Amino acid sequence: MAEDKKLVEAITSMDVDFAQWYTDVCKKAELMSYSSVKGCMIFKPAGYAIWENIKNEMDRRFKETGVENVYLPMFIPESLLEKEKDHVEGFAPEVAWVTYGGLNPLQERMCVRPTSETLFCDFYKDEIQSYRDLPKVYNQWCSVVRWEKETRPFLRSREFLWQEGHTAHATAEDAEARTQQMLNLYADFCEEVLAIPVIKGRKTDKEKFAGAEATYTIEALMHDGKALQSGTSHNFGDGFAKAFGIQYTDKDNKLKYVHQTSWGTTTRLIGAVIMTHGDNSGLVLPPKVAPVQVDIIPIMQKKEGVLDKAYEVRDAIKAAGLRVKVDDSDKNPGWKFSEQEMRGIPVRVEMGPRDIEANQAIVVRRDTREKITVAIDELAVKLPEILDTIQKDMLERARAHRDAHTYVAVNYDEFKETAANKPGFIKAMWCGEQACEDKIKEETTCTSRCMPFAQEQLSDVCVCCGKPAKKMVYWGKAY
Amino acid sequence: MAEDKKLVEAITSMDVDFAQWYTDVCKKAELMSYSSVKGCMIFKPAGYAIWENIKNEMDRRFKETGVENVYLPMFIPESLLEKEKDHVEGFAPEVAWVTYGGLNPLQERMCVRPTSETLFCDFYKDEIQSYRDLPKVYNQWCSVVRWEKETRPFLRSREFLWQEGHTAHATAEDAEARTQQMLNLYADFCEEVLAIPVIKGRKTDKEKFAGAEATYTIEALMHDGKALQSGTSHNFGDGFAKAFGIQYTDKDNKLKYVHQTSWGTTTRLIGAVIMTHGDNSGLVLPPKVAPVQVDIIPIMQKKEGVLDKAYEVRDAIKAAGLRVKVDDSDKNPGWKFSEQEMRGIPVRVEMGPRDIEANQAIVVRRDTREKITVAIDELAVKLPEILDTIQKDMLERARAHRDAHTYVAVNYDEFKETAANKPGFIKAMWCGEQACEDKIKEETTCTSRCMPFAQEQLSDVCVCCGKPAKKMVYWGKAY
Repeated sequence: MAEDKKLVEAITSMDVDFAQWYTDVCKKAELMSYSSVKGCMIFKPAGYAIWENIKNEMDRRFKETGVENVYLPMFIPESLLEKEKDHVEGFAPEVAWVTYGGLNPLQERMCVRPTSETLFCDFYKDEIQSYRDLPKVYNQWCSVVRWEKETRPFLRSREFLWQEGHTAHATAEDAEARTQQMLNLYADFCEEVLAIPVIKGRKTDKEKFAGAEATYTIEALMHDGKALQSGTSHNFGDGFAKAFGIQYTDKDNKLKYVHQTSWGTTTRLIGAVIMTHGDNSGLVLPPKVAPVQVDIIPIMQKKEGVLDKAYEVRDAIKAAGLRVKVDDSDKNPGWKFSEQEMRGIPVRVEMGPRDIEANQAIVVRRDTREKITVAIDELAVKLPEILDTIQKDMLERARAHRDAHTYVAVNYDEFKETAANKPGFIKAMWCGEQACEDKIKEETTCTSRCMPFAQEQLSDVCVCCGKPAKKMVYWGKAY
Repeated sequence: MAEDKKLVEAITSMDVDFAQWYTDVCKKAELMSYSSVKGCMIFKPAGYAIWENIKNEMDRRFKETGVENVYLPMFIPESLLEKEKDHVEGFAPEVAWVTYGGLNPLQERMCVRPTSETLFCDFYKDEIQSYRDLPKVYNQWCSVVRWEKETRPFLRSREFLWQEGHTAHATAEDAEARTQQMLNLYADFCEEVLAIPVIKGRKTDKEKFAGAEATYTIEALMHDGKALQSGTSHNFGDGFAKAFGIQYTDKDNKLKYVHQTSWGTTTRLIGAVIMTHGDNSGLVLPPKVAPVQVDIIPIMQKKEGVLDKAYEVRDAIKAAGLRVKVDDSDKNPGWKFSEQEMRGIPVRVEMGPRDIEANQAIVVRRDTREKITVAIDELAVKLPEILDTIQKDMLERARAHRDAHTYVAVNYDEFKETAANKPGFIKAMWCGEQACEDKIKEETTCTSRCMPFAQEQLSDVCVCCGKPAKKMVYWGKAY
């Protein structure tokens, strides 16, 4: 049973070394594996299944708002990447270049897409002629490549999976409305599906996307007090349209430039789930994205009738629409409990011969370890309720943790003191000058996470320079 | 209405120029668009939605057989690609090479995966230690790159979408069983979902996959009489396992090599659908993969109550589980009919003021143009039945066409005569020697499509050389 031992042997405590705890969970919950390709990871079945659940539900929500899926090439000719000045400056240093096709050098080298604004622009240039062709609200699910130096499972790797939406609109107002609509969709998704509360806001100019007029972001707080940018939505105005010549004839018969947006979320959401909800026994998955929601663990499974009953219960639970399995392997129940905890399965159902005789089972919540006695013939009714409760409780606990680790600083000493000693978000006023952002980053390693939509007037002056304040900003140390 | 005109203007007749008809349909049904990236195409919403339907249903069938999805890197270091001799010889001449990461040349160049056997082997080498770790039945949905010189939409492009399954088993028997199970799954899928009948068989050594012991294939016949390889399943034996050192400790405590398989289908299935079912009015989609199954076209839609009724009917049909839309654009009904036909929507429902008064609508089948009068309040019940009938009829028509274009040749003159004048499959006996395959290909451009599982003894001698025959082979000109 070497492999079982490997799975359940103690992981590093998150209080001792959070980074090591994170890596341990990724590996021991069998979410991923390192590969021979430096900086690229393998999504194992347990990890990929979480992504499939994220993708299916997010895609469903996209389509409800009129999004259509497409697929564009993975390569971008260098001349195309270079068409928008800010954009190429942001991405060229970190792309992978294809220089040979088969045995022959390419006439023009191509990069593997780090993002696809330029390809969508090139496509839209031909697709859009009239106001009747607008809006275009396209999205693709694919992988992208950025040649990162430091990588971490799910959070930063040279290749990662994501979705990228790219839209074109007749007016600036339509583009802005779509930019915000998608940010709100992301925020709702994180809260309702991943049980992760987020701060919605706008990035400062220093932190915005290469080529964007405005970047909106959702920022989550991980268990260790670090911030994780969890999704972004960009309004490009007509900058790309002018660079690529994307014009349409409007109802008034005039030629106008389109207004564009893009928005994306990535497999780093899996990292967010791990670091928001995990504990020292391993992963804790929100029921809505858990590949397996219920793990039935028979006790004394060799006794006649135990396994049969377990399968019968499984079928009833499955018929109620839950994702359920019976762990009928020949390991002992203790091992199975540890495995279920490591893998973050939201509940386990313990059921032995005497329980069966008494028509009862013990349901154990992964998140709180609470034990609930349920009549066996009521499991199919009670489990959906218990899973709903877990989903809600997980969000509330994450929110309470976030709020308890959100601090206010009204002067620079307070800011530095908080940054040095209290991991979490720091809310503080800002003058709007990049010089202050740069200074704060250099001296505290905190970056501006966002200017939240929900502004508060904490004081009248910038926390850094003392000049009049323009915005309240969330600051934090970020992944 | 320039764009509408573009869509419905006449396409080339398939009888005049089948290749041009195909390209016209791909473009005018808005399935795809050419891109600035040479040899790579763009999947537009109508094309990608077909792939999504294929993927969802095939993936569901995979999972029923125990397949788990994973995701491996898109890059393969050159040294890894080179580990299996036959494999690298087959693929190295047609891969795209990444030589720079950001501003720095790579120490070892990497190709963009043309297929992932080598990566899966490298992964399995670490994952598999004991018989308890077997079988591994993994699959990934991704894109791959092969540097083709000639490309055609969906059929052959430098980047294409596919699924690739890669499995490892304890015994040769298990591997063979999985290889055949997946071929059967593909065949059932093509017939039941795409309404495309296929011939199941084994490839000759000349035509098998680089590195495989045996390649099985499903071969379909397109409307023009050309064959299309539509899915393949490979048994690798322990060849890759030996090249990569993938060993496990068996129950008897002995170290053994695993036996492996791989199997794949691609977006060329979309091409198969177009070329099997399409006609001179455009695309004809089997209901099971049609993104929109029912197109409600209101007649005199400005009359009070017409559009309201159309929306009411749409909601009822949607509630019955069908994919339905109302075409409420300001085009005239004639345009709308042509568009619906070009896009291959399986039925349209025509409904005007007098129809509504009489509680009736005209349902027009895309495949046969048959008009069926249905009571409006029975549409939600009748349409699923009509769609089922269409699905079945399309398969039967395709089968009849295939059978009517399948010929027997018992001597070489007959073979050449048939190959020259009768587009279709040719069934003929073969001695088993590659020399005869080569001669037939050179002189008739026919290749061996497969040695069908359903063998017939057409004669005792090879159709080419007259030596004793070993196998009946399906021959054909192929895409």
